Amino acid sequence: MAERPEPRNPKGFIDKRAADIAAERAIVDAVSAVYERYGFEPLATSGFEYVDALGKFLPDEDRPNDGVFALKDDDEQWIALRYDLTAPLARFVAENAQTLPKPFRRYAVGTVWRNEKPGPGRLREFVQCDADTVGSARPEADAELIAMMAEGLEAAGVERGQALVKINSRKLLNGLLTSAGVGDEGQRLRVLRAVDKLDRLGPEGVTLLLGPGRKDDSGDFTRGAGLSAAATERVLAFVGAGAGQRRATLDRLANVIGGSAEGDEGLADLEHIHATLGGLGFSEDRAVFDPSVVRGLEYYTGAVFEADLLLPTLDERGAAVRFGSVGGGGRYDDLVARFTGERVPATGGSFGVSRLAAALKAAGRAEAAPRRGPVVVIAFEPEAMGDYFAIAGELRAAGIPAEVYLGQSGMRAQMRYADRRLSPAAVILGGDERAAGAVTIKDLDLGRELAGGVADNKAWREDRPGQVTVPRGELIAELRRILGPRP
Amino acid sequence: MAERPEPRNPKGFIDKRAADIAAERAIVDAVSAVYERYGFEPLATSGFEYVDALGKFLPDEDRPNDGVFALKDDDEQWIALRYDLTAPLARFVAENAQTLPKPFRRYAVGTVWRNEKPGPGRLREFVQCDADTVGSARPEADAELIAMMAEGLEAAGVERGQALVKINSRKLLNGLLTSAGVGDEGQRLRVLRAVDKLDRLGPEGVTLLLGPGRKDDSGDFTRGAGLSAAATERVLAFVGAGAGQRRATLDRLANVIGGSAEGDEGLADLEHIHATLGGLGFSEDRAVFDPSVVRGLEYYTGAVFEADLLLPTLDERGAAVRFGSVGGGGRYDDLVARFTGERVPATGGSFGVSRLAAALKAAGRAEAAPRRGPVVVIAFEPEAMGDYFAIAGELRAAGIPAEVYLGQSGMRAQMRYADRRLSPAAVILGGDERAAGAVTIKDLDLGRELAGGVADNKAWREDRPGQVTVPRGELIAELRRILGPRP
Repeated sequence: MAERPEPRNPKGFIDKRAADIAAERAIVDAVSAVYERYGFEPLATSGFEYVDALGKFLPDEDRPNDGVFALKDDDEQWIALRYDLTAPLARFVAENAQTLPKPFRRYAVGTVWRNEKPGPGRLREFVQCDADTVGSARPEADAELIAMMAEGLEAAGVERGQALVKINSRKLLNGLLTSAGVGDEGQRLRVLRAVDKLDRLGPEGVTLLLGPGRKDDSGDFTRGAGLSAAATERVLAFVGAGAGQRRATLDRLANVIGGSAEGDEGLADLEHIHATLGGLGFSEDRAVFDPSVVRGLEYYTGAVFEADLLLPTLDERGAAVRFGSVGGGGRYDDLVARFTGERVPATGGSFGVSRLAAALKAAGRAEAAPRRGPVVVIAFEPEAMGDYFAIAGELRAAGIPAEVYLGQSGMRAQMRYADRRLSPAAVILGGDERAAGAVTIKDLDLGRELAGGVADNKAWREDRPGQVTVPRGELIAELRRILGPRP
Repeated sequence: MAERPEPRNPKGFIDKRAADIAAERAIVDAVSAVYERYGFEPLATSGFEYVDALGKFLPDEDRPNDGVFALKDDDEQWIALRYDLTAPLARFVAENAQTLPKPFRRYAVGTVWRNEKPGPGRLREFVQCDADTVGSARPEADAELIAMMAEGLEAAGVERGQALVKINSRKLLNGLLTSAGVGDEGQRLRVLRAVDKLDRLGPEGVTLLLGPGRKDDSGDFTRGAGLSAAATERVLAFVGAGAGQRRATLDRLANVIGGSAEGDEGLADLEHIHATLGGLGFSEDRAVFDPSVVRGLEYYTGAVFEADLLLPTLDERGAAVRFGSVGGGGRYDDLVARFTGERVPATGGSFGVSRLAAALKAAGRAEAAPRRGPVVVIAFEPEAMGDYFAIAGELRAAGIPAEVYLGQSGMRAQMRYADRRLSPAAVILGGDERAAGAVTIKDLDLGRELAGGVADNKAWREDRPGQVTVPRGELIAELRRILGPRP
């Protein structure tokens, strides 16, 4: 006989059970409704793309360009599974440029695949939810995506005040660097990466990374951006210019940045974003300006934003932690040009559906409604199967999930099965019941409750608490009474 | 400059726009609700599986065993995208055998990939909806899946009487062949494949394929099963034993089959299925016995069934055709044993979500509710953008999809945009309106209607039919009046 394969998922891939699926479905439904109210239409592109169409726009340069699942097609062309939903959008827009409304507003919920080293909590297959406006250069388009993501998170169950969108513009830092005489692209990227580490290393660490470089605790040396002391000081003043109020931050930034056309443009963009958020009724506790926000993607060209969850969650050891970023986005103006040669302004935002579900779960938000199993019709007389199915059919028609036990085991095992399914009740139709035109209902929740508190298990079993026999015609009404107050 | 890639999907892959996505989502939602009422829980396994776990259970032997998208993982193990949802279920059940309730009832909606030659209407990526009961040998489990699929199709929009589930059992034909002295597995498969062609070739063609073989119009010769004339006659009598009524068909089959243990078992199974369908209230017009049903999959071991759409649809040339099979399934008892060595009885059914959506669309069922765009707030004064967004926010809060036009074009282009989005109305807030504390609403549906019927376009434009100016505070009420009777 052939060797038996071991049943397991490939590393970095998981299966999802009912509770997780329901949680993600609830998020997607709630967010989709918000996005459609904002006038975004759904789009689902194919999982595979030609590698040349996918390009090398992998999220950041720390990841290898071959971080995709690629294979050679029959016609010798390389195809790969999409690693995000933005690259396929650019391909779609380029392909359908003549017929799409302009601007084109679309949202997408879809699986993406990353061929990376799997690790704890690091999956190679997950679901993203994106929204993008293609063909609008207006900062108002950025603002709307920011507002929409904030509203989407709220609809998904993150209460007002438990998420904060932090907004910045790449143009500001670029303008500042230009006026400080930094023109080299590589140097700019090193500055961005240094600023991105502010949370982790603090101002001292960032000062070293902006200047000569930094040796970490293990002795590893990271090359610095090589800024002068004066330029380093300006960058630090810039990233520290965030104040609670959007208006105050804008005023402070005007003082720190001034002096380059790009910086002024960035400021003007943020002014428009501020006005739009105001028009949409988005107060300061939902969206602020934070000059320290970088976002990994190097293709961003204007506004960038990040949605942080403030809700307290517990880590694996039960300690309170802040969950941090669940999503973000920004303006990118060069993706479509790869195909058409024509620069098309675009802006978009994205969040991880499973990651948001995990955040809500970690915050205890998903526990309110444990998933219930169906009512189980006990099957113990082969000749009465037709009657059991008639009962199940009757319950289903009344909207009550139900099933007939279909294994071959006896009464006790059937009760264990119902218990494992978290069934609220079992229905018993035996000879006595049939003779009396009756049916017996066992309230399994009550049984579980009593079983937990009653010492004398035998007495409990003989008293049969939570078990009631009613005329056959009253089955539905009685079940409704038992199920009534529960989710 | 680097060469520009051509924007296109890989062959056999497509993008889906809003209307198709909405149609498929409606099907999935409706069917999921039915399946959950039957006590089936959702499961989502990973897209990739180890190739050894996936096995070679490709749907039928006409497809090459390498009909999957496979690649070598970092650890040198081969992984592949799932080609159906049954093989991953077998892996999942084997992996979690200790903790799953028995029987395990799950449904799954998921993408599957087939690395086949793409052709018209033949995609390499599509969404399937499966339901399976693992761990029950009872024919009642088969019956329930049959009833559930019929009910699911109805919930999805196939009206009662426009779909018919046809049921058979592999045990019947196997029993008949055994009693006719046919023991060779290859010969049995050739018989199955011959019977499967009854619809296409008629009894004469099948007689040849059961016997010496058949030469088709092009001169190609297909080897026959080599049955004797008597055996061929018995097989033809068997496949022709279908009668309108389940009871009548069972009686007729009893006469044709009799004489082998397996055949008797198959008959007993169908009796149980008949009784269960009766208990569930499934009349003859929803599920019948049809001995000519084969289903491609060679791993079926008992009941097999096929859901045929009877609803008339139009083909590409506008001719009326019957859509045919949209799904089916059957009993398979050997998939889990591959992993555990232990035979686990299982039964399941599957349909293609996109295929069903296409059927409903072809039958004109999806056209009732064309997808509407959002109300478009016209943007022509840069300094008033905040006001426009306030209007959009107000409409969204009232549940009316809305957006501010975010391009840079003038009034006419904005109206064209709204038209392309199929927007029901446009909102105009100009200087006059602002001064008067008013707002203008353009009823675009009425405009489109009038534009279609009015010869003097200029007069129509000056009269401005379907355009009304109301006090700002009455915007929502007026819009609701305009949108009211529409979907």
